[in-house]
Amino acid sequence: MESKRSMIKNIIRLRGNNREKIEDEIVIEAPVTIYLNGNELVTLLCTPEKIDRLALGFLRSEGILTTIDDLASMRTHEEKGLVEIDLKGESVSLEKFYGKRTITSGCGKGTVFFNVIDSLRSKPLTGKMEVDSGKIQNMMNEMQQRAELFKLTGGVHSAALADNEKIILFCEDIGRHNAVDKIIGECLIGGISTAAKCFILSGRISSEILLKAAKLKIELIVSRAAPTSLSIDLAQKLNITLVGFVRGQRMNIYTHHWRVKISNGN
Amino acid sequence: MESKRSMIKNIIRLRGNNREKIEDEIVIEAPVTIYLNGNELVTLLCTPEKIDRLALGFLRSEGILTTIDDLASMRTHEEKGLVEIDLKGESVSLEKFYGKRTITSGCGKGTVFFNVIDSLRSKPLTGKMEVDSGKIQNMMNEMQQRAELFKLTGGVHSAALADNEKIILFCEDIGRHNAVDKIIGECLIGGISTAAKCFILSGRISSEILLKAAKLKIELIVSRAAPTSLSIDLAQKLNITLVGFVRGQRMNIYTHHWRVKISNGN
Repeated sequence: MESKRSMIKNIIRLRGNNREKIEDEIVIEAPVTIYLNGNELVTLLCTPEKIDRLALGFLRSEGILTTIDDLASMRTHEEKGLVEIDLKGESVSLEKFYGKRTITSGCGKGTVFFNVIDSLRSKPLTGKMEVDSGKIQNMMNEMQQRAELFKLTGGVHSAALADNEKIILFCEDIGRHNAVDKIIGECLIGGISTAAKCFILSGRISSEILLKAAKLKIELIVSRAAPTSLSIDLAQKLNITLVGFVRGQRMNIYTHHWRVKISNGN
Repeated sequence: MESKRSMIKNIIRLRGNNREKIEDEIVIEAPVTIYLNGNELVTLLCTPEKIDRLALGFLRSEGILTTIDDLASMRTHEEKGLVEIDLKGESVSLEKFYGKRTITSGCGKGTVFFNVIDSLRSKPLTGKMEVDSGKIQNMMNEMQQRAELFKLTGGVHSAALADNEKIILFCEDIGRHNAVDKIIGECLIGGISTAAKCFILSGRISSEILLKAAKLKIELIVSRAAPTSLSIDLAQKLNITLVGFVRGQRMNIYTHHWRVKISNGN
């Protein structure tokens, strides 16, 4: 199967001393450039599907756009890897965006650091969402089942938005941040509230992902992988529940464990 | 064990319906700010060890510094997370750095895209390094053995520099790019040539990692994980051998397979 998500390449597979030529499915990485009000803003390297969602989610994560009402128009050219977005008058704070960039890193980490400081000053979430531990396990299993591109290529991350019962949105991308941004973009387009929702992620939880979730008032972040010390500290302060290493019957709860109810049987 | 690489946190571990309070080892994420010739350049989020190596490697990867001779002085303040670097006169091309930033992404991906274009115009490597497939397996095993922080916390990536016999340098960091940049910084400080060397990595091979290696004339990139389509295309054009999914007796060779010699027995 060839698609815009994966492609076949001829490779050589070694198994011990046995060498064979095979066809293998490779995840596609492609550039997508976002134009904002006629100006080139940024180029992202990503899995080139749902690029309109990616662009909107990226703008939301960067604080350039807050609601879908900020959007005047959007044109997507999938084959060229272009998304042109026009925002309504006053809503563009590009100076802030460019200003941040000039002192930040090749991986936007400087930006995030300043956001960390902002977030330490911001108010903790007040949501009282509760999720059954068995549901968390089931949703993690479901996400892994749905990770078709990962099963095919082994080279992508998954992200899902869920309530306390089921997965609502699901995305895969070569980048951890892109996968989350696509979910955010889908929420903007579909008018899906992120209140009383959780993120389910395949990748590790860094401070950057924690802050992305906090901006959306996501109360619970669940991952198959590890959190960092900084993400735990931020989650503690912002009243976000952090759950990691969800594997089979096991999980680690790092902060605000009252949101996770232990299943009785199931 | 508390160190600047990991710390103990009190967490709750669920196993089925069993809930217990335990102490768990968490990988530390901390900001490190690089000052260049007295100006704040960038803040990276990283595992806060070898931060002088990280800073030098970052500058090398960004093309701000080429050799250790460009360095006038360096002061490292580990506890504050600061590295102050002064370069000799003409060698700083900050305009290029800032210029790139203003049109690129929260994850530096735009920058990389332009580098991709540059690299497609650059000349293929001419090195004729060859490595035995059994040595590749052994070195991957050795790297996993040495990944102490990963074994402790489950939250970091590994990177190593090797010749065709053995691992020469090894680093761990919460970021894939940081781990590689620390290796690059160590090479600069130690006067270690990267010619006829390979990278051994725990994480997936994106175009960004490929281009980082190409700048150093690294002939072979070996990973436990998957490559992307763009990294394979670039490796093909730049005469770099790409090997992925090195697990046990198995590996996939994506490009220029003549550099990998099949072991006879062993």
